[in-house]
Amino acid sequence: MAIACVEDFRHQARRRLPRFLFDYVDGGSYAEETLRRNVSDLQRLALRQRVMRDVSDVRTSTVLLGREVSMPVALAPIGLAGLYARRGEVQAARAAEAAGVPFILSASACCAIEEVAASVSKPLLFQLYMIKDRAFMADMLGRARDAGVETLVMTVDLIMHSPRYRDMRSTLTGRQTIMDRMRRMVQILSHPVWAWDVGVRGRPHILGNFAPAMPGGAGLAQFTDWVSRNFDPSITWDDLAWVRHHWPGRLVLKGILDREDALRAVDVGAGSIIVSNHGGRQLDGAPSAIRALPHVADAVAGRMEILMDGGIRSGIDVLRALASGADGVLLGRAWAFALAADGQQGVAQMLQLLHHELSVAMALTGHSRVADIGGDALLPDTSLL
Amino acid sequence: MAIACVEDFRHQARRRLPRFLFDYVDGGSYAEETLRRNVSDLQRLALRQRVMRDVSDVRTSTVLLGREVSMPVALAPIGLAGLYARRGEVQAARAAEAAGVPFILSASACCAIEEVAASVSKPLLFQLYMIKDRAFMADMLGRARDAGVETLVMTVDLIMHSPRYRDMRSTLTGRQTIMDRMRRMVQILSHPVWAWDVGVRGRPHILGNFAPAMPGGAGLAQFTDWVSRNFDPSITWDDLAWVRHHWPGRLVLKGILDREDALRAVDVGAGSIIVSNHGGRQLDGAPSAIRALPHVADAVAGRMEILMDGGIRSGIDVLRALASGADGVLLGRAWAFALAADGQQGVAQMLQLLHHELSVAMALTGHSRVADIGGDALLPDTSLL
Amino acid sequence: MAIACVEDFRHQARRRLPRFLFDYVDGGSYAEETLRRNVSDLQRLALRQRVMRDVSDVRTSTVLLGREVSMPVALAPIGLAGLYARRGEVQAARAAEAAGVPFILSASACCAIEEVAASVSKPLLFQLYMIKDRAFMADMLGRARDAGVETLVMTVDLIMHSPRYRDMRSTLTGRQTIMDRMRRMVQILSHPVWAWDVGVRGRPHILGNFAPAMPGGAGLAQFTDWVSRNFDPSITWDDLAWVRHHWPGRLVLKGILDREDALRAVDVGAGSIIVSNHGGRQLDGAPSAIRALPHVADAVAGRMEILMDGGIRSGIDVLRALASGADGVLLGRAWAFALAADGQQGVAQMLQLLHHELSVAMALTGHSRVADIGGDALLPDTSLL
Amino acid sequence: MAIACVEDFRHQARRRLPRFLFDYVDGGSYAEETLRRNVSDLQRLALRQRVMRDVSDVRTSTVLLGREVSMPVALAPIGLAGLYARRGEVQAARAAEAAGVPFILSASACCAIEEVAASVSKPLLFQLYMIKDRAFMADMLGRARDAGVETLVMTVDLIMHSPRYRDMRSTLTGRQTIMDRMRRMVQILSHPVWAWDVGVRGRPHILGNFAPAMPGGAGLAQFTDWVSRNFDPSITWDDLAWVRHHWPGRLVLKGILDREDALRAVDVGAGSIIVSNHGGRQLDGAPSAIRALPHVADAVAGRMEILMDGGIRSGIDVLRALASGADGVLLGRAWAFALAADGQQGVAQMLQLLHHELSVAMALTGHSRVADIGGDALLPDTSLL
Ligand SMILES: Cc1cc2nc3c(=O)[nH]c(=O)nc-3n(C[C@H](O)[C@H](O)[C@H](O)COP(=O)(O)O)c2cc1C
Ligand SMILES: Cc1cc2nc3c(=O)[nH]c(=O)nc-3n(C[C@H](O)[C@H](O)[C@H](O)COP(=O)(O)O)c2cc1C
Ligand SMILES: Cc1cc2nc3c(=O)[nH]c(=O)nc-3n(C[C@H](O)[C@H](O)[C@H](O)COP(=O)(O)O)c2cc1C
Ligand SMILES: Cc1cc2nc3c(=O)[nH]c(=O)nc-3n(C[C@H](O)[C@H](O)[C@H](O)COP(=O)(O)O)c2cc1C
Repeated sequence: MAIACVEDFRHQARRRLPRFLFDYVDGGSYAEETLRRNVSDLQRLALRQRVMRDVSDVRTSTVLLGREVSMPVALAPIGLAGLYARRGEVQAARAAEAAGVPFILSASACCAIEEVAASVSKPLLFQLYMIKDRAFMADMLGRARDAGVETLVMTVDLIMHSPRYRDMRSTLTGRQTIMDRMRRMVQILSHPVWAWDVGVRGRPHILGNFAPAMPGGAGLAQFTDWVSRNFDPSITWDDLAWVRHHWPGRLVLKGILDREDALRAVDVGAGSIIVSNHGGRQLDGAPSAIRALPHVADAVAGRMEILMDGGIRSGIDVLRALASGADGVLLGRAWAFALAADGQQGVAQMLQLLHHELSVAMALTGHSRVADIGGDALLPDTSLL
Repeated sequence: MAIACVEDFRHQARRRLPRFLFDYVDGGSYAEETLRRNVSDLQRLALRQRVMRDVSDVRTSTVLLGREVSMPVALAPIGLAGLYARRGEVQAARAAEAAGVPFILSASACCAIEEVAASVSKPLLFQLYMIKDRAFMADMLGRARDAGVETLVMTVDLIMHSPRYRDMRSTLTGRQTIMDRMRRMVQILSHPVWAWDVGVRGRPHILGNFAPAMPGGAGLAQFTDWVSRNFDPSITWDDLAWVRHHWPGRLVLKGILDREDALRAVDVGAGSIIVSNHGGRQLDGAPSAIRALPHVADAVAGRMEILMDGGIRSGIDVLRALASGADGVLLGRAWAFALAADGQQGVAQMLQLLHHELSVAMALTGHSRVADIGGDALLPDTSLL
Repeated sequence: MAIACVEDFRHQARRRLPRFLFDYVDGGSYAEETLRRNVSDLQRLALRQRVMRDVSDVRTSTVLLGREVSMPVALAPIGLAGLYARRGEVQAARAAEAAGVPFILSASACCAIEEVAASVSKPLLFQLYMIKDRAFMADMLGRARDAGVETLVMTVDLIMHSPRYRDMRSTLTGRQTIMDRMRRMVQILSHPVWAWDVGVRGRPHILGNFAPAMPGGAGLAQFTDWVSRNFDPSITWDDLAWVRHHWPGRLVLKGILDREDALRAVDVGAGSIIVSNHGGRQLDGAPSAIRALPHVADAVAGRMEILMDGGIRSGIDVLRALASGADGVLLGRAWAFALAADGQQGVAQMLQLLHHELSVAMALTGHSRVADIGGDALLPDTSLL
Repeated sequence: MAIACVEDFRHQARRRLPRFLFDYVDGGSYAEETLRRNVSDLQRLALRQRVMRDVSDVRTSTVLLGREVSMPVALAPIGLAGLYARRGEVQAARAAEAAGVPFILSASACCAIEEVAASVSKPLLFQLYMIKDRAFMADMLGRARDAGVETLVMTVDLIMHSPRYRDMRSTLTGRQTIMDRMRRMVQILSHPVWAWDVGVRGRPHILGNFAPAMPGGAGLAQFTDWVSRNFDPSITWDDLAWVRHHWPGRLVLKGILDREDALRAVDVGAGSIIVSNHGGRQLDGAPSAIRALPHVADAVAGRMEILMDGGIRSGIDVLRALASGADGVLLGRAWAFALAADGQQGVAQMLQLLHHELSVAMALTGHSRVADIGGDALLPDTSLL
């Protein structure tokens, strides 16, 4: 069956990945309420169909995160992508560059920033968390600058790991018994294509960026432990001064959901914020990103660029986010699934489908330019405000 | 099991048609949200049951689209009906004529307008899209006039094709591999009755009306391509002057959902509009037709006839639409399914069931005449406004 | 498994009755929206739990339909009960009498009024529709009086039969092919207990009350036809004068849902009304009875007794109805299922379960007497008004 | 598969317990509407995610029910816990003590208060109902004092047993046929681990506390009967004087849902109340505890400690309850399932998971102390008020 949409890539990813890996990508924290709402709240937003407006020249291009983009979309930082496809971050970065959208490399990537930067020609964006060891952070920021990064995305909603039931069940996190190890081995062996292509030929599977900071080895087993010890829950707005000092480039804050936090972000002079609940992977029970968005947009009142992520699965969803106050969106699982399904080619195809969907949706709502999309594209009585 | 309702015809159609064809009729665009809402929003409207009003003489007849009709219902333009039953458009047109309701021939019909017109005695209605090649359009309008058409339905919400995931998966649209072709062949061969009756004896399967304009052949494979190249997304309200010039007859605009667009339709002097989201096949995320209807009716304020389509599956639904401000409704899938299930006889039976349902519903809500049905037939606190 | 509630009786009835009969009892008209809402709207009403009120002497007894009753519940008129159990109406009437609740004999009963009246000692209530043949009606009313009936229930919402999809599919209504007849025979033969106990030994299966008026035979096959010809859709409030003239006893109007109709009922001096949508068997799309009830109660303002039926499945539901403005409720399917499951004994057990549930619910909401149950027994923010 | 959450313990409990026992724990009264709402209403409450607040020192400890606790959680009184694991009350009490949370021993426990008290070092809390035989009550209170109990929990919402359909079906309540007995024996024999470990080695299975008052034997079979005869539905607020007289210690009222009842509780000087619908086991149709909570908290206005139970399944839920006005929560099924799944070790693990979840949730909503959690932790437009 031909691939038609993100959900189809998800189905393929489910077939190709060992179960525990698929669950890692697909799942969220706790009962996965926020995860579900990210998607279902978007679907509730009704768009105004308009007719007989000249839409023979619809353009999705715009400026986002300080650069020209082919559409108001970027690839979100996704950890461990090197496990979904061989050298996954490289493949995805190439697909993004070819499609004209920014790629944000995760701090927790398998491929180190140097490897990924070398494989594309335009500057990457780099995502980092606040780490207790500030010497490591300074060093990491230096590496990023050296790799040509101009824009730093600070993820502020992952000061600690939130319980994810699926990962606990699969013992991706938590202690492992021998039985658990055997079960996982069976899952791997029953996906021989993945086992050979990614498991064997895609090595090494370390956290390329953190390796220097993880003396006990940068393998995945050590990672969660390291996070709990090294992520910094004491960080406050004042600590951003330190970041600002070591990163003179563009600064984006990822993981803001609340209007008051958004106002603080304006105060500290962030270039952009990303309204996000980490794809439903941190605080379960948090509102969906699309529900939080209009409140934040209202508070920010144009003083800062606003991106949003969480639940975007189609070009229609992109339009919904723009109409709710975003300047652009990030795609998380959409590209992770496409990558797992078909590597660079999958990500390219996914971006092309999304671009086409966005164009058609713009045309049918009577918009020729991204900048024209505003709140009046939504039916008032279905808004979530 | 005897047939009781439209849903039963749908089940039979599913059994009779090759899978990819059934999906083409049944499906909608993207995630099919609007498709679902078309039906579910109708069901939410609660009707006021009234008793002890003399309803011994309930009449469903009225005037619609400029002619006397047995009930406020017409058959919507449906493309490719010649694939659901042998010379399907002819069979449906005959059933409609016998039942006293208008039949709107789709521009994308298999049977050319001349063939269908010759098989009935009353004038057909004809539906057309705005085509870039105005010479072809002028020619087509001439053919329509020659075939006795008095009322032209201009579909304004299909300026381009919207992605339909089911059709992409079945490769009805998009590129086909050999595997895809084989899979479709298997689907056809596993429906031998259809294969012989429609597939072989129902030929030719071309787009009868567009054939003159499609030099590369008017087969189905060429159609989607041709649409993308020839449908005109640059059309604006001003271009209607051209249509008006070449079509002095009655003009109906199909595919209006927004009150502002409805007001423009009043301004340009359209005889009627059809509040429609193309059966959930164009802008997914658009409101259901029944939700849009009262806003449009409010804006139009009686200055123009209003029809509505999308989700009508019973006589109760017809009453709901009338109570929400429509003068009449179109049936889309209802007749397509009935046609696929049982040809002309199926369409006749479906119309008879609907007529009976509407009569009973009128009686139980205390209405003897269609004209008496108004907003007070609905329970106020369940309305969608 | 022991029987715990009405739903359990329903499951047993489904096992015991031939499919087409179960569907006749269980089903509703059209898409069965109103049928579902009758039940689900009741469940949405939240009750206020109260503690530490002396409820050592909870009494469910009250006065209803002009007589002392053990609880504010009566058995609704149900047609064809003689098909669910042998001489079903007699069995149910006996169970009702033993339990101290009124039994309303349907005009469309299998057992004639004389047979049922002879089997119990207290007066029956009798239900009738408006029949065109007023001579027959006068005669029927005379028979009722002779059988000791004091209260007449005029059903006003069945002036014609509404399409019921399940019955059409099973060809209980509509034309029958030989195949249909065979399918039904298979259903009967696969329920040999029913076939012997009810099908053979429960004969004759005629409409005992209508037999004199149906010259072509009072069998079931003739009934629907006869209804369509003889039920009187021309009836208005003025025609009640005729009834009043021939029936000096207590008069109850069954099938009122609208506040305006309720006001008319007050005007014509009805003793009671039954807020009802005929168990979701007539106007599908009509509001649930519990949703209509508070509006009607508000309009009536105590000037008339108000009963309600539709969806009552437990003692909790009885309390909800009382708190929403009813003086009592009728049980429809609840007793039909219990009768089909276990005859007189089943109905007795069902009534006992309901009585217990009502007592407990009264105690836990702090009510010792039925008369004390009012609107403040409901949580305000969950009401349907 | 490793255990990740309460739902996983539930699945294990379902596997380990004979069906009728699992149903006893899992089920609720009537149609189980309130049971479901307890859980689903909690999930609807959306939490405000906050970032960049120093949460490096999150403390869940607080004062509850008059003592220092490691988190604002206590184990609710659960009857018959000795049937879910061998000497179940002892195991659970030990786990609670080790985790630093209070254990409330049910009056209907299998293990007598003396046995449980002897197995832990800190004072137990003891729960009692109002029993008609005041001499027994006085005696029981004396035993509690002797066993070191300082806090008495009077359950006021169980003045009689409410019908629980599952227990009626399994004939745990109601009359038993030989068939029923055999069915239950089969269920036991198909769980041999339970049969041996709990059924045989966990004896005696009597109601340890009530044994002196049940001359006919304190086995389970006699219990429901005894309840119906001895629980006191005549109790009013005035009768609390008697309790106050015989219990000078701390008094907690469990089972208040209504703001007016809460005000009475303030008047009589109760130390705390527990907003509860008995886990959906008494008045079905009552609002969920979380829905009732803010109304009660509003009425109490800080004059009394407020706990809440019903539906708490995670640390997120604890936070939701605190944000809705509770000072703490009780866990019911959460510990019963954990106990059935893995005895004392299961309860310990469950409490540890919950503690971790609460800590993370506090951190991600920006709270370092339990006392800081207030109404502004909830998104206003999702509140249930
Ligand atoms: C498998 C996976 C890994 C992720 N890793 C990171 C990460 O390393 N850094 C980060 O800031 N966000 C991470 N996220 C969150 C994403 O950046 C993004 O916020 C989220 O996926 C958006 O929701 P969506 O998946 O519904 O599009 C991850 C998300 C997923 C699904
Ligand atoms: C299979 C199919 C083909 C259609 N073809 C056309 C068409 O050729 N022209 C047009 O204006 N609308 C077309 N429509 C839309 C219908 O005219 C109508 O708006 C829609 O079917 C109404 O919704 P319903 O199917 O829920 O009744 C088509 C719809 C379907 C389902
Ligand atoms: C099988 C069946 C037969 C019925 N027959 C009659 C009838 O003969 N006369 C009448 O007034 N109502 C009749 N009703 C309607 C009932 O009196 C009552 O209004 C309805 O069953 C109440 O809804 P419930 O079944 O949800 O309790 C019938 C209902 C059912 C289910
Ligand atoms: C199996 C079971 C037995 C219970 N026994 C008692 C009891 O003996 N006394 C009491 O006051 N509450 C009893 N309860 C109610 C609990 O104390 C508590 O209110 C309820 O379980 C909270 O809901 P939850 O189970 O959703 O957490 C019982 C609940 C269950 C599930």
